[in-house]
Amino acid sequence: MRPKLVLFGDSITEESFGEGGWGASLAHLFARKADVILRGYSGYNTRWALKILDKTMNGIGGDSEEPAAVTVFFGANDASLPDQKSGFQHVPLDEYKENLRSIHAYFKKKWPSTTVIFIAPPPIDEEGRIKDLCGDDPSGQAERTNEAAGEFAKGCITVAKKLNIPVIDTWSRMQEIPDWRKSTLRDGLHFTPLGNKVLFEEVVKTLKDVGLSDEKLVTDQPYYYEVDYKDPSKNFGN
Amino acid sequence: MRPKLVLFGDSITEESFGEGGWGASLAHLFARKADVILRGYSGYNTRWALKILDKTMNGIGGDSEEPAAVTVFFGANDASLPDQKSGFQHVPLDEYKENLRSIHAYFKKKWPSTTVIFIAPPPIDEEGRIKDLCGDDPSGQAERTNEAAGEFAKGCITVAKKLNIPVIDTWSRMQEIPDWRKSTLRDGLHFTPLGNKVLFEEVVKTLKDVGLSDEKLVTDQPYYYEVDYKDPSKNFGN
Repeated sequence: MRPKLVLFGDSITEESFGEGGWGASLAHLFARKADVILRGYSGYNTRWALKILDKTMNGIGGDSEEPAAVTVFFGANDASLPDQKSGFQHVPLDEYKENLRSIHAYFKKKWPSTTVIFIAPPPIDEEGRIKDLCGDDPSGQAERTNEAAGEFAKGCITVAKKLNIPVIDTWSRMQEIPDWRKSTLRDGLHFTPLGNKVLFEEVVKTLKDVGLSDEKLVTDQPYYYEVDYKDPSKNFGN
Repeated sequence: MRPKLVLFGDSITEESFGEGGWGASLAHLFARKADVILRGYSGYNTRWALKILDKTMNGIGGDSEEPAAVTVFFGANDASLPDQKSGFQHVPLDEYKENLRSIHAYFKKKWPSTTVIFIAPPPIDEEGRIKDLCGDDPSGQAERTNEAAGEFAKGCITVAKKLNIPVIDTWSRMQEIPDWRKSTLRDGLHFTPLGNKVLFEEVVKTLKDVGLSDEKLVTDQPYYYEVDYKDPSKNFGN
């Protein structure tokens, strides 16, 4: 039975198997070692995530088969400004933090041995958002700001530290990349291939810290050059 | 419970979640609709595939949870020339066909409702193989030929027709692509992004023929713009 890695989150998770996507890169890295299970729900905030949590996780195999790890990557939608176009996705910061605690509690109860990893929301390029939503209309307003995203990222990190679980500070890490607004973000919010690569590397590092590295995970079945081709039963049994 | 699509094959399956890979593209297309499970074993022929079949498929969920479909994509290694460098991977054509029948029989017994799809091996660019294995040594010999690959492809198609199951004729389809030797193959055998795209589109067509299309599969959870944000319990229950 291969270990499972579950990716639970919003659109940045749902589209993570697209070209250069961080989810596909994980599946590729662990191609013979672990199954990467995609549970991304575009546009969802933590309030809605909590409501689907049990339904969506029950489909992933029995309670006896605990995944090795699950990433929880919400906040980009919660941090939408309440009085703008995407206000219906907004969740107040305190509720966001409480929802993250509830999601963590759910996993600890359902799968006690599973490592829960929080991923904080990414930074926002407001100009990119305006262009995406309003085209060239200069009167347009961004429905998300980098400042609000930063507050939710800090909230996510605070909750993770308190729970003593790993957390990836996407918001800070991506702003270290040269020209991050355009180089890592495609529309001010979603990732370019470089943005995907940055997150992929952070997830790989975090998994390694909890013992889930390419080196430590067991390869499913012998490599072809290890097979005794004159007597393959030596490798495979009968 | 989402439908499962299992990809069983050799290196062209194992690496199908790499950049532009046909497996990742399937996972992306079905991101909210189906789970794509990767079971690729680089270098394996059908003889070894048969030996690991039960072990590798048992890990995919109980017998009660039958995948919607499984692709069986072997033959590139079976078709290695017996008297060349990769001869240890060679399997005689008659045994190859018999092994394919046995793999099909295994699936029909284990998962009677699962659609088994055969994928015939791709064409070979001998010049690309020599370059990959021998560098610029002009005396080098290819360990695979397009002619041999074609015979195994025909064998695969014959078995599939007899079993009355869908089959993708990769060998013929890829040779219809302009400059196929270099445009679809990276080293005379493995796929470029274009080669991946060609196979991806064939798999999508084949899945559609058996009722597994993006349009027909059910989306897991409502789209975010369908959520009644003032009363999400209308969508999600309590």
